[in-house]
Amino acid sequence: MRFTSEQRLDDGVLERAFTLGEIPGILWTPASASAPAPLILLGHPGGLHKMYPRLVARARRSAADGFAAATIELPGSGDRPRSATAEQARVDLHRALKAGEPVDEEIVDRLVLPLVEKAVPEWQAALDAFLSLPEIGGPVGYSGGVIAIGIRLAVVEPRISAAVLFAGSFVPHTMFEEARQVTIPLHVLLQWDDEGNDRQLALDLFDAFGSKEKTLHANLGGHTGVPQFAGDAAARFFTRHLT
Amino acid sequence: MRFTSEQRLDDGVLERAFTLGEIPGILWTPASASAPAPLILLGHPGGLHKMYPRLVARARRSAADGFAAATIELPGSGDRPRSATAEQARVDLHRALKAGEPVDEEIVDRLVLPLVEKAVPEWQAALDAFLSLPEIGGPVGYSGGVIAIGIRLAVVEPRISAAVLFAGSFVPHTMFEEARQVTIPLHVLLQWDDEGNDRQLALDLFDAFGSKEKTLHANLGGHTGVPQFAGDAAARFFTRHLT
Repeated sequence: MRFTSEQRLDDGVLERAFTLGEIPGILWTPASASAPAPLILLGHPGGLHKMYPRLVARARRSAADGFAAATIELPGSGDRPRSATAEQARVDLHRALKAGEPVDEEIVDRLVLPLVEKAVPEWQAALDAFLSLPEIGGPVGYSGGVIAIGIRLAVVEPRISAAVLFAGSFVPHTMFEEARQVTIPLHVLLQWDDEGNDRQLALDLFDAFGSKEKTLHANLGGHTGVPQFAGDAAARFFTRHLT
Repeated sequence: MRFTSEQRLDDGVLERAFTLGEIPGILWTPASASAPAPLILLGHPGGLHKMYPRLVARARRSAADGFAAATIELPGSGDRPRSATAEQARVDLHRALKAGEPVDEEIVDRLVLPLVEKAVPEWQAALDAFLSLPEIGGPVGYSGGVIAIGIRLAVVEPRISAAVLFAGSFVPHTMFEEARQVTIPLHVLLQWDDEGNDRQLALDLFDAFGSKEKTLHANLGGHTGVPQFAGDAAARFFTRHLT
């Protein structure tokens, strides 16, 4: 991991951009940390630059609660090389959504499965790098979408102790079996009128998770309309489980 | 309203039993209140004596947040005269549940509709009495089941500003139209594996509510297994809306 820039935000949070091989990312650490901080991995749909305002807001909130936060660019997003297959799948998905047609499972598989396959080992390599820093300790949480990436990480990465999963993207049906294997505490956010999601599928997915502690917070509104109090509740979930 | 007994609980909360005509009830007020306190009406499935441990816990939590809390016995429960119709409907309901049969709508109608018709004006009369006390101000929230009573109250009683509704009992299908007329902020609690409820019906009901701010908190577990953190979240909802 090579730091490429750093700045102090006005609340004292240290923001450092880095590259991990070819993958760009951002690490935020609290203004003052006496001990190594627990870490929240901030998931997102891809496009660090476009997502920056929302990511930094989540990172500041995490830092205020005593957490470090970190994110990396997704394969095929932002400045990373595009995948022709994924781009075609995205076009097909948007065409189906725009036409008000049901989204074919095969499109979701083409879009999401290769992304999960590529992204999860990258998140794991990034986690190795984060945990090698003296200012980062554990435990580690995963927060956000892409929910399929969160599910796979929760199954294969034992260093992740709890997850806030945002049910705001499509999930391949084959991943329901993986959802049953998840056992860490989960806090699932669902926007009731999310335009990029299938509500019934999100409810079925919540039902499938194998975790003994799982909570669904559904709020009225669209994909980007998560209310402030829902973010606060997610933060309290991490405080309960990671401190 | 005639107070029949009073005691100070160990946290300083003043607990007073009362009767309002033939209806027994309990009022809890915070240890120290400089101004008239906002009020939370504590709904329950009937049987004040049996429900007391859970009611007093909810009242203490409310008092700690600065709220008065009050409840009354339901028609046909506790020491109040039984209704033969309701008793028969309850027998029929339990028989269907025990046999694993779908619960006939007609049974739910027989059980719930007359209860709502009788209980709602009683809650309103009790509210008149509570608000006439100098130590009780407003605003007023309704918390709990019977959810059908909460729905009707939210529609007909303008003094109720926000409600935490516990989706833990059956709702007559005719009440979905009333649910659409609810406009106050709602916080709906659903126990995912509630044995005395229909999950899909609870989700449909959440969808039907007309409120612009509505949140569903679903947690793993049965009817009485609402986790501590879910109670805390409901308390924060009232603090947001009633103070």
